Parts: sequence; structure tokens; C-alpha cells
Amino acid sequence: MHVGVDLGGTNIAAGLTDDEGNLVFKDSVATGGRRPAEEIIKDLASLCARVIKGGGCGENDVKSVGIGSPGQVDGKNGVIYSSNNINFRNTYIKSEMGKYTGLPVFLENDANTAAIAESVCGAAKGCKNSVMITLGTGIGGGVIIDGRILQGAFFGGGDIGHHVIVSGGEECTCGRRGCWEAYASATALIRDTKRAMKAHPESALWELAEDADAVTTKTTFDAADNGDETAVRLISDFLTYVAEGVVNMIYIFQPEIIVLGGGISAQGIKLTGPVESFVKGIREESFLKTKIAAAALGNDAGIIGAAMLHSLQC
Amino acid sequence: MHVGVDLGGTNIAAGLTDDEGNLVFKDSVATGGRRPAEEIIKDLASLCARVIKGGGCGENDVKSVGIGSPGQVDGKNGVIYSSNNINFRNTYIKSEMGKYTGLPVFLENDANTAAIAESVCGAAKGCKNSVMITLGTGIGGGVIIDGRILQGAFFGGGDIGHHVIVSGGEECTCGRRGCWEAYASATALIRDTKRAMKAHPESALWELAEDADAVTTKTTFDAADNGDETAVRLISDFLTYVAEGVVNMIYIFQPEIIVLGGGISAQGIKLTGPVESFVKGIREESFLKTKIAAAALGNDAGIIGAAMLHSLQC
Repeated sequence: MHVGVDLGGTNIAAGLTDDEGNLVFKDSVATGGRRPAEEIIKDLASLCARVIKGGGCGENDVKSVGIGSPGQVDGKNGVIYSSNNINFRNTYIKSEMGKYTGLPVFLENDANTAAIAESVCGAAKGCKNSVMITLGTGIGGGVIIDGRILQGAFFGGGDIGHHVIVSGGEECTCGRRGCWEAYASATALIRDTKRAMKAHPESALWELAEDADAVTTKTTFDAADNGDETAVRLISDFLTYVAEGVVNMIYIFQPEIIVLGGGISAQGIKLTGPVESFVKGIREESFLKTKIAAAALGNDAGIIGAAMLHSLQC
Repeated sequence: MHVGVDLGGTNIAAGLTDDEGNLVFKDSVATGGRRPAEEIIKDLASLCARVIKGGGCGENDVKSVGIGSPGQVDGKNGVIYSSNNINFRNTYIKSEMGKYTGLPVFLENDANTAAIAESVCGAAKGCKNSVMITLGTGIGGGVIIDGRILQGAFFGGGDIGHHVIVSGGEECTCGRRGCWEAYASATALIRDTKRAMKAHPESALWELAEDADAVTTKTTFDAADNGDETAVRLISDFLTYVAEGVVNMIYIFQPEIIVLGGGISAQGIKLTGPVESFVKGIREESFLKTKIAAAALGNDAGIIGAAMLHSLQC
């Protein structure tokens, strides 16, 4: 058995899994990220003890603790250098948590744990080369090459959302223009939907969202399902941008599979179908080999991936 | 000592290097790529014997033969599946060459051998994470992650020239629009220079190239040096596109160093200076760490990289 911890700005979620990554028990606690690091780590250790007990295990049944953390994370040395919403700064969390639990502790950036989960026991199971793309507020990436996570020389590789696909295009939160996430994130689709609603007062989008602030990505997908012309065009453009970046990832990494995650992946075949058609339309032989799939593990991926950190060739 | 072979559509170049990749002796032979594979391999073996002798070595002094080949190449199994200009199809070159030489034979795609050379004994020496970008007819890439070459699941990874940076932009030879190489290759600069010459008959570019067909990238760099406004703008735009893709590579791979190669790299600081300024202007902490350098080994990189294939953790 293994414990996985998904360290978030608001909540810390932890779970107990078996060796195959099946989640047996989970629990969570408020992060209280502004408190001193020592207090947060103490709570974290208590939470781990709780999920071990809750899963019906004794401490001897558990082989490792894995932690997925936001921010600048050095997995090799077990240090969280900085984290925007949590009061960690040069925090040696691996050794601290090791003291509490007496178990081997593994640490990884949380952008990578979901990719690891999908790779070990989700949509990319059995693939040694995969790219997980999380379409959310931004676009997150987790790249697995020959069974190893791409970390970069300074623990920040795989930041695929900020590769520019429209030079000089839409402003991005990072300060550049034309990043992939400025066109193919949930945030980008919502922005474009709001713009289109203003320009098209006749659109059925107004029936699904009474005011523009209530728009979600589901609004646009649903309106497109109902045949609303404006929404159909919005979804078509959005999926083209998603696919453009996916093709870039295939040229660069040539993985066996691309896994699309984030809230939008609930659209399933409505998301993966058009993206796959676009990719196969490129017609290069190798492009016919790379599969496109929706993520399989949903919100638990963070916990499961953290629990599976022990299994990676690092 | 090691033998490196750079298999080209026109010539086969081979060289003898020491363990550090220093080139001791080199020679070449016409490829005659339309001949039966057996004949080409026989010539290849004779060439290897010649450079061993030419370098003053006996066969016992040589530890390995490395081959860099164009086309679809499976280094692990030593097979060239296909190669546009050479009559190789499912050719087990590793075992065939092993029979002739009695030495361990290593095989790699030629887009990667230059990157390996720069990594082992060129501009990226000492770096375990580097990206080599060759700005030539197209844009070639060789990506080294933790001392291993990025190969992809189907032996075609690292094809960074065909990642789109201007969605819907200039036509590319691959059939897509807006690929990086359609903006930042030597071919792209020459195309843009010819267009600008037509639009600007007053430009000093006409003094350096009497007709547009004589334009090379040097023409545009030289005219910009002389202060010609049209050329200054062309070079500025070109370097911005080079840098845009370089920044994409840093976000994706976060390497210790980016090495710029190809004929244009002869421009040295005139190429790397503006690209480095653009990159450092991004202001993300990690961007201050990635170095930008011109390739150090020139045309011999293919031979040297092939000779150093034995040293890679594969």
C-alpha cells in the first residue's frame, strides 16, 4: 500500500492506494497555507496517519508516501523552493515528512502527478511515452519519456501551455502573446464565448447563460449540441487550437498517447473525436500511431499519481 | 579510438576520433544512393577501414563504429527503415556493418548526431540537458534529456521545426501552415528577403545580390550590417521568430543550454546576442539560467556525434 498526497492551496487531499494505484480510502484537511510550514507539515503527517488507519492498514503495510506539490519543486532533493499559496520556502519536506512517518517520501510537482497517475493506471497505462495535457484555467503538461517524467534542468520542464502557437496573438497571463493556453484553455473558451455573446445577441447561448458571467465551457458545448451557429463556430475554433498544440506535441515528443484532462475532458468523444480527426489528417505515418484519449482518473489523479511516485525510474 | 560515419544523400563522410571526440583523420566517398544497399554498405565498410588506417591505427585500437543516417532510423535495433535519397529499406545496417568490421556498431538519426557531438565535446559540453537547433534548409532538432537523446516512441521525436508558431500562417513543406521552420529557417529568411527586394527596389540588398536568385542568408546579414533599412527589418523579424521558437523550447524542455547550429550560426554573436536578449526579456527566473550559444563543431559535428554514439546511455 502507498499514501498519496495532493497538496493544494485550499485543501490537502490524501489517499491510500494499493500497488496498482487503486484508491482504497481518502480524506482531506484545509491547507491554511499562510500558517508556518511546521504546522502545515504536522497536519499533513496527521492526515497520512488518518488515511492509513481509515484504509484499515497498520503502518507496516505501507511502503511509501508520495507528495504532489504546486510551485517550484526539486523532487530529487525533496525540497519545495517556493509555492504561491502555501507558506513553503526552501522547505525540506521529504526529510521532515520522513521523520513523522518513518517511510520513504517522494516529491513531485503537482503538474506531473496527474500525468504519472494516467501513465501508471489510467488512460496511458502500458505506455512508456505519453503526454498529459490538462485543459483548465491554464494548460498544464506532464510529459513521460521512456517511463521517466520530463523535469528539465531546473525543475520546471514540460510547461507546454506557454509555447506560442499564434506569434503576436492574444495576451497571456505570463506576459507573452499567443501562448497555447491563451487559445485552448477553459479560460480562453469562456473569454471567446463572452465576446461572441456580445456580438451575437440572437445566439442561443443567452438562453443557457442568462448573463455572460455565468458562462462555463459546458455552456458553449451544450449550445453547440443544440445547433446554435455561434456556439458551433466557437467549439470548432477552440478544438482546432487544441489540436494545433496537440500536433505540436506529437512532432516534438512523438508519444504513444496524448491524454486530454481537465474539466473539459468530461466532454469525452466530443473533445477527443475532432482532435483525433485533425491529428490523423496530418497524414504523416507516425501520426497514425499516436492515440488520443480523455483522462480516466478525474480529480483523484493527483492523489493516485503521488502514491505511484515510488514506481518511477528517477 | 572510434569511427564516426555521416551518411549523406550525396557523400558519405567518415572520421576517426579519440575517446574525447577529437577528430584525428577524415575521408569521404560518393554515396551513389540509387545503387543496391549491399554495394553502399560495402563502400561504407571500405571507407571505415581507410580512416582507421589513415589515422595511423590498427583495428585493435578502435572500439566502435557509429553511423548517423537520414530517414526513419531505429537505433535500438540497428535498422534503417527508409531513407529518401539512399536505397535503404528495412536495412539491418548494424548487423551488416558488424560483419565487415567486427566492431560494435551504433546507429542514430543524423538530426541527432550533431546534437550529440555538441553535447559531448562542443558548445553543450558538460550539460546533461541541451537542445540543438539547426537553422538550415529546414529546422532540425536534437534534444538531450538527462544525457539521453529524445527519440520518441516511433523513432521520430524531437522534430521541433514543425511545431506551429503562427497558426494559419506561411505554408510549410510539410503541408501545415505556420511551422517554425517556415519562419526561422535559412529558406524562410531567403524567401522573405526576395519578397522584400521586390517591394523595395531602393534597398542596398540589390547591390549585394544582382538578382534575387543569388540571395543567401549572408546577403541579408551583410546588408543589415551596412545599415540598409529593409535588411535591418528583415533580420530583426527573422531573429524574433528564431527567438519565439527558442523560448517555446525553453518552456517545454528547460535545458541548461540551447545550441544554435546550421550555416547561419557562422554569424555568431549577431545571431545569439539578439536571441539571448529576447529570452532574458521573458524575465522568468528559470529563463535567466538557460544559456544560448552558437554551435562549435561546424560540419564535422555529424562525424563526431556518430563516433560518440557509444558513450550515450541508451
